[in-house]
Amino acid sequence: RLLVRLGEDWIFLFLLGISMATISFGLDVTIAKLQRANLWVYDALDRYRYLQYFSWVLYHVLLMITSAGMAKYISPQAAGSGIPEIKVTLRGVVLAEFFTLRTFIAKLIGVTCTLAAGSTIFLGKVGPFVHMATILATQLGRLMVKLVGAKENPSRKYEMLVAGAAVGVACCFVAPVGGVLFSVEATATHFAVRNYWRGFFAATCAALMFRLLAVINREKETVAILFSTNWRVEFPFDLPEYLSYAILGVVCGCLCCVYLFLHRTTLLFLQNHPRISTLLRNNRMVYAAFVAWVLASITFPHGFGQYLGGTRLTMKEHLETFFNNITWGIEELSLGANISGQPPNPSYSNNFLQWTHPNMSTLEILTCFVVLKFFMLLFANTMIIPAGYFLPVFVYGAGLGRLYGEIMAKIFPNGIVSEGIPIKITPAGYALAGAAAYSGAVTQTLSTALLVFELSGQMSHILPVLIAVLIANAISQNYQSSFFDLIVIIKK
Amino acid sequence: RLLVRLGEDWIFLFLLGISMATISFGLDVTIAKLQRANLWVYDALDRYRYLQYFSWVLYHVLLMITSAGMAKYISPQAAGSGIPEIKVTLRGVVLAEFFTLRTFIAKLIGVTCTLAAGSTIFLGKVGPFVHMATILATQLGRLMVKLVGAKENPSRKYEMLVAGAAVGVACCFVAPVGGVLFSVEATATHFAVRNYWRGFFAATCAALMFRLLAVINREKETVAILFSTNWRVEFPFDLPEYLSYAILGVVCGCLCCVYLFLHRTTLLFLQNHPRISTLLRNNRMVYAAFVAWVLASITFPHGFGQYLGGTRLTMKEHLETFFNNITWGIEELSLGANISGQPPNPSYSNNFLQWTHPNMSTLEILTCFVVLKFFMLLFANTMIIPAGYFLPVFVYGAGLGRLYGEIMAKIFPNGIVSEGIPIKITPAGYALAGAAAYSGAVTQTLSTALLVFELSGQMSHILPVLIAVLIANAISQNYQSSFFDLIVIIKK
Repeated sequence: RLLVRLGEDWIFLFLLGISMATISFGLDVTIAKLQRANLWVYDALDRYRYLQYFSWVLYHVLLMITSAGMAKYISPQAAGSGIPEIKVTLRGVVLAEFFTLRTFIAKLIGVTCTLAAGSTIFLGKVGPFVHMATILATQLGRLMVKLVGAKENPSRKYEMLVAGAAVGVACCFVAPVGGVLFSVEATATHFAVRNYWRGFFAATCAALMFRLLAVINREKETVAILFSTNWRVEFPFDLPEYLSYAILGVVCGCLCCVYLFLHRTTLLFLQNHPRISTLLRNNRMVYAAFVAWVLASITFPHGFGQYLGGTRLTMKEHLETFFNNITWGIEELSLGANISGQPPNPSYSNNFLQWTHPNMSTLEILTCFVVLKFFMLLFANTMIIPAGYFLPVFVYGAGLGRLYGEIMAKIFPNGIVSEGIPIKITPAGYALAGAAAYSGAVTQTLSTALLVFELSGQMSHILPVLIAVLIANAISQNYQSSFFDLIVIIKK
Repeated sequence: RLLVRLGEDWIFLFLLGISMATISFGLDVTIAKLQRANLWVYDALDRYRYLQYFSWVLYHVLLMITSAGMAKYISPQAAGSGIPEIKVTLRGVVLAEFFTLRTFIAKLIGVTCTLAAGSTIFLGKVGPFVHMATILATQLGRLMVKLVGAKENPSRKYEMLVAGAAVGVACCFVAPVGGVLFSVEATATHFAVRNYWRGFFAATCAALMFRLLAVINREKETVAILFSTNWRVEFPFDLPEYLSYAILGVVCGCLCCVYLFLHRTTLLFLQNHPRISTLLRNNRMVYAAFVAWVLASITFPHGFGQYLGGTRLTMKEHLETFFNNITWGIEELSLGANISGQPPNPSYSNNFLQWTHPNMSTLEILTCFVVLKFFMLLFANTMIIPAGYFLPVFVYGAGLGRLYGEIMAKIFPNGIVSEGIPIKITPAGYALAGAAAYSGAVTQTLSTALLVFELSGQMSHILPVLIAVLIANAISQNYQSSFFDLIVIIKK
C-alpha cells in the first residue's frame, strides 16, 4: 500500500499518457479512413460532375451537423476549444459539468467529425485534446483516490490538470518538450517548477505509446518526427537573411492583429444582436450545415477549389507540402508543360502537385490560398462545435511563410550573397518560421518555436525562427489580447 | 521620454544580451589563445621531457593561483559558481556585495584563468556566466533607472535577474531556448509565464551577437550550432534500443547519486574539521596550486595522460569528439597498425586520434577517462575559485554515454534487429543522452535535454534522450538533493 502510494503519481501519469496517445492514434486512423473514403467516392463519380459536387458537399455537411449535434444535445460544454475554460479553472473558477465523462464522449465524437472534414473546414485538434486529457486526468485522479483511499487534495488536482494539458498538446504533435511548454504558456500564468517533470513524464509516455502504435500499425508517418526535414546547412544563413526573417515576423504579427480584431468583431456582432444570437443558438446545427455548405462549395476540387490549391489534402499533408524542401517555383519550371488543361490528378505520393495548375503558377495559387483561407477560417470559427483553433493558424502561418519564402526565392534566384558565397534560399525554412510566428502571435506564446523544431526534427533554423516569433509576439501583445483570452473576455 | 520608458525593457534586454555575448566571445578567444600558447610551448620543448613536464605543470598552477587570488583578494563573493547564491536571492535573501562591479571583474578574470586551464582542471563556465549576467543586469538596471528617472521597482529587479540568468546560460551554449529553461529550472521555484519573453528576447540577442562576432572573426566554430550533427535517421531507433537508453539513464542516475554523496561528504569533511578548514581558508592559493599540480601531473600528455585520453583537448573539443558520428571501435580497426609506439601526434584537425594509443584500445582509454575524471572532478571541486560545475558534469556525462554506446556497438556489431531490419548503433546518440541525463541528474533539471538538442542541431533523438533524462532525474531526486541545493544547505 505504501508502495502504491509512492508510485501513485507515476502510475497515474503513465496511464494518462498511454491512454491519450491511444485515443489520439485511433482518432488519426479513423479520420484518415473517412477522408480516404470521401476521396474514393469522389473519384469514382468522376464522370458525373454534379454528383461529385453533391457527394463532396454532403460529406462535409453531415460531419458538421453531427459535430454540432454533439455540442447541442450531448454536452454543451464540449463546444469550442476548451483551453479558455481550463485557463479559468486553473485560476480557481469552478465550471459545472466541464470535467465529466459525458463531455469527454461528446468532445471525442465531435472532434472526430470536425477533423474528418479536413482542410475544407480547416479546424484543429489541439484544444479538444487538451480538454479531453484534463477530463481524463480528473477522472483518473478520482479513480486513484478511490483505489488508494487517500483524501482528495486540491493542490494535487491542480498538478494533474497541468499534466493533462501537457499530454493533450504532446499527443497532437508527438512533441513532448514543446507540448509541455505550450500547455504551460497557454493555460497557466504562474508555474511551479517542481511540477515540470509531471508534464514531461506523461508527455514522454504518450510519445512512446504513439511510436509503439505506429510500429504495430506499420505506418511510417507517425514516427517521432512527423515532418522530418534534412536541410544540409553548415553556415545556415547570413546576416542579411535574418532581416528577411524579421520582416516575416512583422508580417505575421500585423496579420495576426487583423485576424484577432476581425475575430473579436464577428463574435461580438453575433452576440450583441439579440435576434441573430437567439436565431443562432436555436439553430446551431442548421447554421453549421450552412457554413459547411459554403466552405465545401468553395473548396470543391473541380470548381473553385482548383485555384485554391491543396483542397484534396488533409491538414497534415498541408504541413508536409509546406515544410517540403523543394523550391516550388523552380520545381514547377522543371516539370515543364502541363498541357492537359486538367486539374492535377490525385497522386497520393507527390502531394506537391496539388499546388500546381495548368493556368496558374504555384505562387498565384498560394496567394489565393493565403487570402481566402483567412476569411474562411474566420467564418468557420463562428460555428459552435467541438474544434481546436491552434492547428488552423499553425497551418495558415506555414502557408504564409511558404508564400513569403517562394517570393524571396523568386526575387533572389541565386540566393543572398554574403561573404562572397551565395547561399540559396530555403522556402521551407520560411514556412517553419511563419508557422511558429503566426500561431505564436495568435495564442501569444513563444513555445511554438519549439513545436516546429520538434515537428521538423532539425534545429538549424533556431535563430531566425526565434526572431520571427519574438517580433510577431511583440506586435500582437501590444495591440490585441490573445485568442484564448479573447474568448474568456467575451464569454464572461 | 514616454517612448524611452516604453522601450526601456527592450533596450535593457538588448544591451544585456549583446554585452554578455561579447564578453563570452572575447573570453573564448582569449582562452583559445592561451591554450594554443601552452601547447605550442609544450611541443617546442619536445626533446626535453622534464622541461615539458615543468612547463605543463607551471601553466596550470599559475592559472589556478591567479584564479584563487581573485577570489581571495578582490572579491570573496566571486568564488564558486554563483547559482546557489542567485537561487537564494530570488527567494528574497539579500546578499551583501554579491552584485557589485568588483565581484564582476574578479569573476571575469578568475573564470578566464579557470577555463584556460582546460580539461586538466575540468571546470566550467555556466555558473560564473549566470552570476556575471545577473550582476550586469543589476548594474544596467540601476543605470537605466538613473537615465529614465523612474523609481526602483523590486519586482522589476526580480524579472531582470531572471532574464540575466537566462542570458548567462544562453551565452555559454549559444542555446537560447534551452538556456532560458535551464536558468528557470536551476534558479527559480515558481515562474511567472509573463516573464518568459524577457529571457527569450535577451537570449536571442545574445545568440545573434555571437553569430555576428563569429562572422567578423571568421571562425566557423561559433555558429548557431556548436556541434552540428547530421545523423541520417528515418526510423531512428527500435523499441529494444529504448530499453538500452533507459539503462543508460539508470546508470547515470546511480552514478550521479554516488557523485553527489561523495561531493557532500568531502565538503562536510573539509568544513567540520576546524584545523583543516582554517588551514584551507588561510592558504587557498597554496591549496589551489597543490590541486593544480596533482591534476596536471596526472594529465601530463607524455606521462600518465596518454592513458587518460584527450588531455590535449579543450572541453569543447572533448564534446566534439564525443558527439562525433563515427564509431571509434570500428574506426580504430580501419586505422590499422599504429606501430610507431608513440603517443598520438598533435593533429588539430582530427581530434579523435587523441583517444587512440598504440598499446590500448579506445575503449580502455575511455574507461580510464570515465573512472579517473570522476575522482579528479571531486578533487577539483574542493578548490575555492570562480568556476562553474555544470559544464564538467555535462562533458563527463557525454563521455560516460559515449563509453556506453561504444560498448553497445561492440556487443551488437551489426546493430539491433527489429522488424527484420538491423539498425546500426550510433554511439554519438548515447553520448548526447549521457550528457543530458548525467548533467540533468546532478542539477536535477530536465531542460538539459533541450540543451543537447540545441548544441547538436538535431532533434531526432528526442525520445530516447528524454527517457534517459527522466529516469536519471527520478533516481537522483529520490536519493539526493541537487548540486546547487547541496551548496545552499552546506553554506547555511
